Amino acid sequence: MSDKNACWVLADHPDGMPTLETWRFEERDIPSPEDGQVLARSRWLSVDPYMRGRISKQANYAGGVKLGEVMHGGAVAEVLESRHPDWKPGDLIETIGFGWQTHAAVSGDGLTRVDPALGPEHAWLSYLGMPGLTAQIALDLIGKIQPGETVLVSAASGAVGQVVGQIAKIKGARAVAVASSQDKLDWCRELGFDEGINYRETDDLPGAVRAACPNGVDVFFDNTAGPIHDAAMQNLSIGARIIICGTISLAGQFDAPDMGERFMRKILVSRAVMQGFLIFDHQEKYDAARRDLSAWAAEGTLRFKTDILDGIEAMPQAFLNLLMSQNFGKQVVRVDE
Amino acid sequence: MSDKNACWVLADHPDGMPTLETWRFEERDIPSPEDGQVLARSRWLSVDPYMRGRISKQANYAGGVKLGEVMHGGAVAEVLESRHPDWKPGDLIETIGFGWQTHAAVSGDGLTRVDPALGPEHAWLSYLGMPGLTAQIALDLIGKIQPGETVLVSAASGAVGQVVGQIAKIKGARAVAVASSQDKLDWCRELGFDEGINYRETDDLPGAVRAACPNGVDVFFDNTAGPIHDAAMQNLSIGARIIICGTISLAGQFDAPDMGERFMRKILVSRAVMQGFLIFDHQEKYDAARRDLSAWAAEGTLRFKTDILDGIEAMPQAFLNLLMSQNFGKQVVRVDE
Repeated sequence: MSDKNACWVLADHPDGMPTLETWRFEERDIPSPEDGQVLARSRWLSVDPYMRGRISKQANYAGGVKLGEVMHGGAVAEVLESRHPDWKPGDLIETIGFGWQTHAAVSGDGLTRVDPALGPEHAWLSYLGMPGLTAQIALDLIGKIQPGETVLVSAASGAVGQVVGQIAKIKGARAVAVASSQDKLDWCRELGFDEGINYRETDDLPGAVRAACPNGVDVFFDNTAGPIHDAAMQNLSIGARIIICGTISLAGQFDAPDMGERFMRKILVSRAVMQGFLIFDHQEKYDAARRDLSAWAAEGTLRFKTDILDGIEAMPQAFLNLLMSQNFGKQVVRVDE
Repeated sequence: MSDKNACWVLADHPDGMPTLETWRFEERDIPSPEDGQVLARSRWLSVDPYMRGRISKQANYAGGVKLGEVMHGGAVAEVLESRHPDWKPGDLIETIGFGWQTHAAVSGDGLTRVDPALGPEHAWLSYLGMPGLTAQIALDLIGKIQPGETVLVSAASGAVGQVVGQIAKIKGARAVAVASSQDKLDWCRELGFDEGINYRETDDLPGAVRAACPNGVDVFFDNTAGPIHDAAMQNLSIGARIIICGTISLAGQFDAPDMGERFMRKILVSRAVMQGFLIFDHQEKYDAARRDLSAWAAEGTLRFKTDILDGIEAMPQAFLNLLMSQNFGKQVVRVDE
């Protein structure tokens, strides 16, 4: 084990798509925990679309990463040293506030205790973590799926999308996937999705959505924004619910205006609800949602694909893969299992 | 009294802004009521933005008007002859299903009984009718105004907007008006609005909204879409509610895509809710809402400006005035009081 903290710090606020030069690798001293903190060593690092927002020049809902600061991110980590009464060495924790690094001293308050009995460690970054909780809680609060309805999901083989589609099936709805390759759609079929649209292989995305959703889209779980969003908006049923969960298609034009067709008349005519969803607003619902998710996983109703890269060196590439849709399933990096 | 039915029929489906030639004046035979119908004579005809949608070539939430068909519209009318047990000659009714004409035979089911004790007859087309009910019910269901919040209203001196602003004040919120002239803003001030923006006199609408709503827009009651909508979306508070009630700024480009800046990231970052609202979905709430509105009007808390033109001949001009924001207050036409 290294006696240094290997970390990635932000080297540049990208204008468009980030590159490998957006971050800089450094080895720093391992920090000492202060009173109330724990020192932990990362085992799994999470790679998530929201990170694009954190390196934007513009303000965002979570404070941005400053130049020279360790890049923000979540991890499953092992406690090495504790100065907080809830934690002891050897405990496994999950926290969004770890960073792209091997070691971190973090507050002992607000950490999630990782229970390996509920699923593999990295599941706490995926279907038992933020993505799974997002799918379950957003569908509960906004989606309100009724049996027989049609649920359209963008980035359907991604961390959130996989869970959305399977919950749609559990609720008795039709699930329609939008993804970037036939392999991903094949996986969605295996998970139980009824239909799939490869957005890279169609010239008429609105028409493809219409064909796959002949009764209209009742719930649109949008992880991408952009042209897929536009195509869904052309096909809303009366009373449609649109969950704005992610905007990854905008990753390359993050600080530029998103120009295109607006859709106020579609919202009006369909009496649709469009709502932005951020999981951190709903922490009081985590435990109940995680119970559902782990029970479904245990009985085999919920399956999940994870895309694993190895070594902290891989973090920037793993993130770029995600932004360019070259991952397949939830992207994580195994640092030191 | 004429022994003919004077009416306006649709002569053309306009591509952009309608003109006086969009309708054709005709005199037809006065219809005879069938069993279950009443024959009624219009006293007040309503002029409303939704009518633009009815003459669109494209499908809409309410069936469009066909060429040669009498133009759709609401009226306060007097029953001349009844073949329905609920109605007798002399009764006053309000119905959305009357049409731009002096006489109509309409189903006796689903008509609203006009009680002159609650307000002037034409109020049943304005603050006791669809516009007032829209303001009150949409704010109740979607707006959920809290004391101290900021409510921004487009077309603020219009039929819906006037009521929205006054309800915002009743609920203890700040009300900010957007309108097309200083006269209209002066009227809004008289009604109690705290601030006003003349959108025709500013080069920086987002900046004007920011100045008038320094803590952000908590509730945006949107009657216009277009640039005013865009400016509001730049200034949402966290948890903002956006009521999509009308899109009158699109009247001249109704069947063309509404191109501009999309705002998925704003919806996401603000965790905003945007919802389309159509009053006809909420008929079970009319009676309670009308009780509130008439009580506020009786005590002087709710005031209302109506723009009256005379004679059925004036209908197309009255409607064009509305589309071009040349009316001042709720537009009605007095046919035969």
